[in-house]
Amino acid sequence: MMSRKNPKTHEIVLRCGTIVTMNQERPVLKNMDIHVQEGIIISIQPSRSCPAQYPDLVEFIDAEEALVIPGLVNAHTHVAMTLFRGLADDLPLRQWLFEKIFPAEAEHLSPETVYWGALLGCIEMIASGTTCFSDGYFFQGQTMLAAHKAGIRALIGQGVIDFPAPGVSDPKKNLEIGEQFIEKWLNFSDLLTPSLFCHSPVTCSEDTLTGALDICRSHRVPLQIHLSETQDEISTIVQQKGRRPVEYLDQLGLLSEDLIAAHVVHLDEREMAILRDRGVKVVHVPESNMKLASGVSRPAEMIRMGIPVGIGTDGPASNNDLDLLMEMDTAAKLSKVYTGDPTSLKAWAVLRMATIGGAAVLGLAEQIGSIEEGKRADMVVLDLQQPHLQPMYDPVSTVVYSASGGDVRDVIIDGKVIMKNREFVSLDTQEAAWHVRRIAENIHP
Amino acid sequence: MMSRKNPKTHEIVLRCGTIVTMNQERPVLKNMDIHVQEGIIISIQPSRSCPAQYPDLVEFIDAEEALVIPGLVNAHTHVAMTLFRGLADDLPLRQWLFEKIFPAEAEHLSPETVYWGALLGCIEMIASGTTCFSDGYFFQGQTMLAAHKAGIRALIGQGVIDFPAPGVSDPKKNLEIGEQFIEKWLNFSDLLTPSLFCHSPVTCSEDTLTGALDICRSHRVPLQIHLSETQDEISTIVQQKGRRPVEYLDQLGLLSEDLIAAHVVHLDEREMAILRDRGVKVVHVPESNMKLASGVSRPAEMIRMGIPVGIGTDGPASNNDLDLLMEMDTAAKLSKVYTGDPTSLKAWAVLRMATIGGAAVLGLAEQIGSIEEGKRADMVVLDLQQPHLQPMYDPVSTVVYSASGGDVRDVIIDGKVIMKNREFVSLDTQEAAWHVRRIAENIHP
Repeated sequence: MMSRKNPKTHEIVLRCGTIVTMNQERPVLKNMDIHVQEGIIISIQPSRSCPAQYPDLVEFIDAEEALVIPGLVNAHTHVAMTLFRGLADDLPLRQWLFEKIFPAEAEHLSPETVYWGALLGCIEMIASGTTCFSDGYFFQGQTMLAAHKAGIRALIGQGVIDFPAPGVSDPKKNLEIGEQFIEKWLNFSDLLTPSLFCHSPVTCSEDTLTGALDICRSHRVPLQIHLSETQDEISTIVQQKGRRPVEYLDQLGLLSEDLIAAHVVHLDEREMAILRDRGVKVVHVPESNMKLASGVSRPAEMIRMGIPVGIGTDGPASNNDLDLLMEMDTAAKLSKVYTGDPTSLKAWAVLRMATIGGAAVLGLAEQIGSIEEGKRADMVVLDLQQPHLQPMYDPVSTVVYSASGGDVRDVIIDGKVIMKNREFVSLDTQEAAWHVRRIAENIHP
Repeated sequence: MMSRKNPKTHEIVLRCGTIVTMNQERPVLKNMDIHVQEGIIISIQPSRSCPAQYPDLVEFIDAEEALVIPGLVNAHTHVAMTLFRGLADDLPLRQWLFEKIFPAEAEHLSPETVYWGALLGCIEMIASGTTCFSDGYFFQGQTMLAAHKAGIRALIGQGVIDFPAPGVSDPKKNLEIGEQFIEKWLNFSDLLTPSLFCHSPVTCSEDTLTGALDICRSHRVPLQIHLSETQDEISTIVQQKGRRPVEYLDQLGLLSEDLIAAHVVHLDEREMAILRDRGVKVVHVPESNMKLASGVSRPAEMIRMGIPVGIGTDGPASNNDLDLLMEMDTAAKLSKVYTGDPTSLKAWAVLRMATIGGAAVLGLAEQIGSIEEGKRADMVVLDLQQPHLQPMYDPVSTVVYSASGGDVRDVIIDGKVIMKNREFVSLDTQEAAWHVRRIAENIHP
C-alpha cells in the first residue's frame, strides 16, 4: 500500500546483474534483468530483453558491476538495544544482564528512547543488507513505528517476563499487555507482524509460557523465546524442574511449529530430536554466544536433521553490531573450528540460513527469502568494485567470506527502493543517530 | 625521503580528534590536535592550540566527528594471494594447500601476477586501516615494489621451502635466492624491510631452517615461520623428529628474539614456556585457523606469560579478507567462547595486539604502534558518523566490536596522507583491481 504513493516504486528493473537467487533449481544467474511491479518480482530474464510496460514510471538500477542477493533475514535481535551498544563488554552473561543491562533498561527505556534506538537499528540493518528482522523487546509499539518509518519487514515480539519490566510495571499484566499489543498492530501493515517474546524458561513461569503460546496461537502468529542459551540456564531448569529445558518445554506443550527458539546452544542428541519432531524453528546466534562465552551451537547438525535454522545477530549490546554479512562469516568459521571439519558448514549453507532459511523460520518462505518470480521484491545489491571483493571466483564465497555491511550499495524492500548508492531515499539517518547520542549522554557505564 | 617530494606531506595537523593512543600512560585523549612534521608526531596538544610553523604547507584533517587510532599492524599475511581469494573454500588445510593452492601458484604466479595481487592487497589493507604488514611469499621483489607504490610499511619475507617453488625452481638454491633478496632490498626504503619466511618445520629441512636463521641474523632482520599450525604438523614432526615442533626447533637453536612464529595453535604448557624463555614472537591468526579448522590458539595465555603477541589475517585465500578490524572482533570473541571466560581477551588487549603488540613482534615498537610524540606518524581516522558506531560509550569497544574496514576514512603512513575521505590520494586503485580480474579469468577452481 505504501508503495503506491510513490510512482518511482511502481516498477523497478535491476539491470544486468549477477544474481544469487537462493532458488534451488537456478542458484546463480548471470547478466539477467529483474523486473519488479507492485512489490512483486514479475520476471527474471536475460538482460535488456524485458519490456517496461510503463517506461516513464520505471526506475532502473544498474547492477552490472554488482551482485544481487535476496534481502537478508536477521532472525533474532533486540534492535532498540543500539542504545546500549558497547555499554558493558567483556563480562559474563549473568553479570552483563543483571548488573548492567536490566538496570540500564529500567532507568532509560521509554517510548521515546525505544523509538530512536529501534530506528537507528533499522537504519543500520538496512545499510548492511538486512530487509527483514525478528525482534523481542519492550515498548514494542515504538519498534513497530520505527520499522514502519524505515520501510523494513519485521516480526516484532512484545517482551514477556515475570519481573517488572519497562512499560510492564506489574508482571501479572504481562500477557494482557502482550495480547493488547498483538491486537493493536495485527493489521497495521503488510510488512509487520506482531508476536510475543518470552524471555526464557527461567524468567517466565509455566503459566506465562503456556498463556503466551495460547495468545499467539489464537492470533496465528509465532511465539519467540530464548532457549538453552547458557549452561547456567540448563542447571537452573534441571534443578527446578528435574529435566533439561527442551524436555521441560515439551512437557508444557510449548514445542511446535509455532515456536521460534533463539540460541539453542546446549543441547543433547535427544533434545535435538525432540525439536525436530515437534517442528520447532531455531535461530543460530553465534557472535553473541561467543562474546558472552555462552557456548557454541551446532547449526550444521540441526540442518542435517531437518530442523529449520535461521541466523541472527542478537541485540547490539552483545555483538556489537547488526551486520548479518559478518555474522555469516563468523558462523561458517566457528562451525568449522568447533567441529574440526572445514566442510561442516559451507558458504552455501550459511547464506541459506540468512535468506530462505530465516524466511522459513519466520513463516515467510512463501513471500521472501529468495529471488524468484512471484515473490515479494526484497533484494540487496552489493558493490563489487570494492578491493576486498576482487576477484570473484564464486559469488557465494564472496558474499559469505569477503563482503561486509559496508559493501551494500542498494536495498529494495517490498518493491520499494529504500537505499540507493548508500543513501537512504527518504529517511534522515542522521536524525536517529543524533537522538541516540543525546539519549546516551545520560547513560553511564 | 618520499615525503619531501610532496609539500602536502611536509606538515599535517589532525584537528579535534578523540585519540586512542595505545600509550600506556595516556590511553585515550579527547579533543586534541596531533601535529606531524617530516613523518614524525611532534606534538599532541589540546585542540586549536598547536602552532603551524609553515601555515601554507600544513594539511588539516578534521577529526571532530572521528576517532584516531594508531595504524594497524597485520603481522602475518601473504598479500599477493588476493589472486586466489575464494578460489577454494570449505576444504581441509592439507587438501586446500596441496590440491588447490600449490598447483594454482605453480601455474599462475609470475613477477607480473604477484605485483598486481600484492598491490591490490596493499590497497585493501590501507582501505581497512592497516599501515604495516608482515608478509611471506614468492617473487617478493614484486611485493616490495607494490608496497612501495602503495606507500605502506612492511616486513617482506622471501619464501623458503624445500620443494620447487614459484621463482625458485631448484630448491637447493632457496637460501641463496633468499639472501640475494635481502641484500637487494635492504636499503631500498625506510618503510620496507626484507626478511626470509620459512614455510614450516615440515616443509623445510634442518639445514634450511638453520641456514635461513644464519642469513637473517647476519643482516639483522627477523626470520618468519609458520609454527604448530595444525595437528597434522605436530604428528608429522613427532613421527619424524621424536619431539613436538617447538622442542624440535629449540634443539636446532631456531628459537630466539629473531624468530616470528605465526599461528602457534597446538602448544602444550612446556612449549609455551620455551617460547617465552627464548623470546620468540608470536602472531595469532584466528580467522584462518577457524576457516581451515586448524584449531584455536591461546593468545590470552601467551600474553599473560609475557610472550609478545601480534595478530594477522593470513592470506586472503584462507580468510577471505585482509580486514584487521574484523579480525580483532573475531579474536576477542573466539577467545571468550573457547576459554569459557568472557573476560579472557578484552577489547583493550586485542587492540594492543593489532597496534603496539604487532609493532613489537616486527621489532618496530620504538617507531610505530602507538600515537606518541617522537614516533613515526602511522595513523588511521575512523568515521564515527556510521549508524553502527552510535553511540560511543568506550572508543576501544567501538573499534574492536563495532567497526569494520569500511569505516576507515583517512590513512596516514609515515606522515604521508595515503587515503582521505576513502579516496586514495595518488594511487589508481581500479588499475590493480582490473589487472587482478584479468589474471583471475585464466584461473579456474
